[in-house]
Amino acid sequence: GYASGVRKVTLIPGDGIGPEISAAVQKIFTAANVPIEWEAVDVTPVRGPDGKFGIPQAAIDSVNTNKIGLKGPLMTPVGKGHRSLNLALRKEFNLYANVRPCRSLEGYKTLYDDVDVVTIRENTEGEYSGIEHEIVDGVVQSIKLITEEASMRVADYAFQYAKNNNRKKVTVVHKANIMRMSDGLFLRCVRDTAKKYPEIQFEERYLDTVCLNMVQNPGKYDVLVMPNLYGDILSDMCAGLVGGLGLTPSGNMGLNGALFESVHGTAPDIAGKDLANPTALLLSAVMMLRHMELNSHADKIERAAFETIKEGKYLTGDLGGKAKCSEFTNEICAKL
Amino acid sequence: GYASGVRKVTLIPGDGIGPEISAAVQKIFTAANVPIEWEAVDVTPVRGPDGKFGIPQAAIDSVNTNKIGLKGPLMTPVGKGHRSLNLALRKEFNLYANVRPCRSLEGYKTLYDDVDVVTIRENTEGEYSGIEHEIVDGVVQSIKLITEEASMRVADYAFQYAKNNNRKKVTVVHKANIMRMSDGLFLRCVRDTAKKYPEIQFEERYLDTVCLNMVQNPGKYDVLVMPNLYGDILSDMCAGLVGGLGLTPSGNMGLNGALFESVHGTAPDIAGKDLANPTALLLSAVMMLRHMELNSHADKIERAAFETIKEGKYLTGDLGGKAKCSEFTNEICAKL
Ligand SMILES: CC(C)[C@H](C(=O)O)[C@@H](O)C(=O)O
Ligand SMILES: CC(C)[C@H](C(=O)O)[C@@H](O)C(=O)O
Repeated sequence: GYASGVRKVTLIPGDGIGPEISAAVQKIFTAANVPIEWEAVDVTPVRGPDGKFGIPQAAIDSVNTNKIGLKGPLMTPVGKGHRSLNLALRKEFNLYANVRPCRSLEGYKTLYDDVDVVTIRENTEGEYSGIEHEIVDGVVQSIKLITEEASMRVADYAFQYAKNNNRKKVTVVHKANIMRMSDGLFLRCVRDTAKKYPEIQFEERYLDTVCLNMVQNPGKYDVLVMPNLYGDILSDMCAGLVGGLGLTPSGNMGLNGALFESVHGTAPDIAGKDLANPTALLLSAVMMLRHMELNSHADKIERAAFETIKEGKYLTGDLGGKAKCSEFTNEICAKL
Repeated sequence: GYASGVRKVTLIPGDGIGPEISAAVQKIFTAANVPIEWEAVDVTPVRGPDGKFGIPQAAIDSVNTNKIGLKGPLMTPVGKGHRSLNLALRKEFNLYANVRPCRSLEGYKTLYDDVDVVTIRENTEGEYSGIEHEIVDGVVQSIKLITEEASMRVADYAFQYAKNNNRKKVTVVHKANIMRMSDGLFLRCVRDTAKKYPEIQFEERYLDTVCLNMVQNPGKYDVLVMPNLYGDILSDMCAGLVGGLGLTPSGNMGLNGALFESVHGTAPDIAGKDLANPTALLLSAVMMLRHMELNSHADKIERAAFETIKEGKYLTGDLGGKAKCSEFTNEICAKL
């Protein structure tokens, strides 16, 4: 199992504030005696023998060998032909389920205090198929692709997640009233999967209805599972309810490994100034520890981070404080 | 112009609570001496000579002649082959722009008090093309269709709307980072249109970012224009911020006429019990009056409705009150 011995973890520090917040996480992990060894890799695209840009082989090998990674924010290279690096990684490692828990933090007040939802997003197809055509001038079609295989896979992941994390309910979010065949297929897959988990409540809701109810009464929801684009939207919205992408973790589950990441931007304006908030990456790293069954380390680090935020003495600028990234980090280390 | 003489307006009372709330609006219009004459029509689908169900010809003729209509909620008939009647109407009358203003009501407290946004949604294509295929077993594609014609049309409507309503800014909402060709085309159309309106500020934002910012700081936004599905989502979300679909109006602008409607459901559980809230339909009717250049009637009715809500003595159940629909309606009439 995962729990014994020192395991290697691939670290993709990322761009902009990525290196600082990655260093913060490493420091905290050291203070908590987490039994892992980091293997830092660079994913800046390189030109391959075919002339196309791609993720460097060393990075691919590292993730494939270690089967687990932590990743900071990445810039999308400018210029035609470069698709988002984030998307390239999802594809390369077949990261089929994107999991984003959003919970109200006791220490950080927003308009909402009872948010505790987890969005589980199909991460490989849907509106992200990348298949588009200009049929005639001024008439474009994009193809949303839904397959039974990917839908069953993410549906099963969602119910397993609910079961393993003592969650009560799974809501499937869809627009099968409009996309009867594609969202209809997704819906049927989740519905069929639900039958195998009679102990978990199951409900079906339209995307628009969920968006409306989520801002009025987020306490209604628990685990939500949905096609790719809907997950992009809902996860950001839920992050907004609890304070934004600087505070919410994310994990990408693959067939052959998992990649945890903060999903905020690279914040080039504050990069290198010791002003960034490492919380999202740290909480992603905590999710990673739970995935590795290093639960006591995860709990300890999470508790120290939440306490530091709650005390409010060492908050970074994005949270209304004046502390530097290093001061916030040191305070967490001190609590460990 | 619209402003002189008595004009006929098509009324589609709708199902469930539709007839009661329509009667409420008619009563208020009479009390306000609005110079219109109602022509009520039934849109329950009938089987045509080709064996297919469709909107009755009399209803189609009425809207086409009057060029303006008000519509309550409609049930979607159950059974295979019935698509949503709402969608059929959008299609039949080429209702290319869906306009939904959402404003915080002084009289109805929510978590937000500074919402004043208008979502303008392309209403004829995008993810709503209805084109779907099962390519092989378990592999479905839905086609999102974006045309220059429809995109330019709704873009121009959005800037005209901003101009005519003293709005400062238009934000185009897109995922052109993912759907580069389809959303890319939409984005370019709005961008090109923006150049013709230098007096209106213009900005481009990703859909996920807007969802996140909208729940944190809705005051950031003003007029938003976007493809069909994104409008479905954002308009419901914004409605949620100000109290839900029972309070927010909607207008569908066509090439050859306009249809105003409340977008909440038919509420079969309370239908016929004089418990429904007519506000959304009434505010839609107020939008209609402005469209007809009956501005002083519109202002008068709107003021009476807002005052009644603000006083809080005659609120319906959905707003936490105990009043009947007729009591709320009578109070508005008394204020006129
Ligand atoms: C960066 C972008 C391509 C990405 C997406 O659209 O999925 C992001 O918004 C996310 O949610 O991870
Ligand atoms: C009823 C449904 C087909 C419709 C839509 O998806 O557009 C509704 O949600 C709306 O916003 O008008």
